[in-house]
Amino acid sequence: MTLPPFSRTDRTTLKRRPQRGSYDPELVHAILDEGLVCHVGFVVDGLPFVIPSSYWRIGNRLYLHSAPASRMLQQLQQGVDVCVTVTLLDGLVLARSALHHSMNYRSVVIFGRAERVESEAEKLSALEAFLDHVVPGRAAEVRPPNPTEAAGTAILAIAIEEASAKVRTGPPVDDARDMDWPVWAGEVPLQMVEAQPKASPDLRFEGPVPAYARDYARTRRDRASGAS
Amino acid sequence: MTLPPFSRTDRTTLKRRPQRGSYDPELVHAILDEGLVCHVGFVVDGLPFVIPSSYWRIGNRLYLHSAPASRMLQQLQQGVDVCVTVTLLDGLVLARSALHHSMNYRSVVIFGRAERVESEAEKLSALEAFLDHVVPGRAAEVRPPNPTEAAGTAILAIAIEEASAKVRTGPPVDDARDMDWPVWAGEVPLQMVEAQPKASPDLRFEGPVPAYARDYARTRRDRASGAS
Repeated sequence: MTLPPFSRTDRTTLKRRPQRGSYDPELVHAILDEGLVCHVGFVVDGLPFVIPSSYWRIGNRLYLHSAPASRMLQQLQQGVDVCVTVTLLDGLVLARSALHHSMNYRSVVIFGRAERVESEAEKLSALEAFLDHVVPGRAAEVRPPNPTEAAGTAILAIAIEEASAKVRTGPPVDDARDMDWPVWAGEVPLQMVEAQPKASPDLRFEGPVPAYARDYARTRRDRASGAS
Repeated sequence: MTLPPFSRTDRTTLKRRPQRGSYDPELVHAILDEGLVCHVGFVVDGLPFVIPSSYWRIGNRLYLHSAPASRMLQQLQQGVDVCVTVTLLDGLVLARSALHHSMNYRSVVIFGRAERVESEAEKLSALEAFLDHVVPGRAAEVRPPNPTEAAGTAILAIAIEEASAKVRTGPPVDDARDMDWPVWAGEVPLQMVEAQPKASPDLRFEGPVPAYARDYARTRRDRASGAS
């Protein structure tokens, strides 16, 4: 099923390099599903704050969770305007000239307002989706949240409606006069991969390290391509 | 030389888990020097914007560059308040219980105001430092910026004074009653590494792929440890 594009607003209209912009919900969702950290912007007494946070997506809602004491939660639960940005760095673009160097990336910017999720059932299923987003396969194996824990965790949801993506891909674009400059030029792709997992010093479980930990990046990528 | 700690302000005082916070300039600088992308927050008509950007550091100043047409530049050069956040995701923390899962990370938040760098000489040396930050060793090999290019590039500087770092490291912290839950627990370290470089389709240079591209992550890490 193809989703209709997001409506453009003044906030989501790209001023710079609009050809890199997209209002395609499927692209926006794919970027959000790949990322692990978002940056949440809000205004307190006229001043900007940008706080890193984990997040996850269910349908057309972006979720954040937080301890009730956090500044971000205190602000967001009042229904203030928020801007959430997710950026995936895909590579470095090495040009012949210094100023044509660039980065390949995919980013999403969402404007909206957060609301607190109040229902215990919705909170519990949202928390399961969160773990499934970060480490697919983990939720089924761990001790699930109990109602006391759910009550002590604030979950916020933001509608993914006023949103856009911005993407750069491909090789450098140099000036014609620089094409003979004697230097290598091209892309250096970057990727986030796991190193050797480290067992907890107090681990009692004697089974093997699960595949989703040993082979994290590939397991998660396979899940994403299977799910799309 | 040990730098004195940053003065704490209301904005940089951590409300949540203050034991993870630091006002040590050397830690703040090390995180900034390792990162490649920052998230820049500013307020337009009372509404928050969070825009990803490359950046670099020279001494106690953080630099951004931008095309003159960008919304970020248009706003920041007016001297508005800005919040710049850099987050390095170091790993996933897999606990026995769902709600004790966490992430290991190092982040920096800087509050301040940007000013435009106007001097051509300062712009040219700042651009060289930028390339050196992203790809150490590259600046000496490429066609350097000329005065026309420097004039067409806006460079902004923000003093790194009202700043703090926040760091989580180490294994999960589970409740005592969950220690026998039959699941692996520990850390999955994450790291950003290069994949195989891709030469530009129109590349004329016939020399080898430079080590800083072939072996990007290690080259940059070695440079960082040598420089500190």
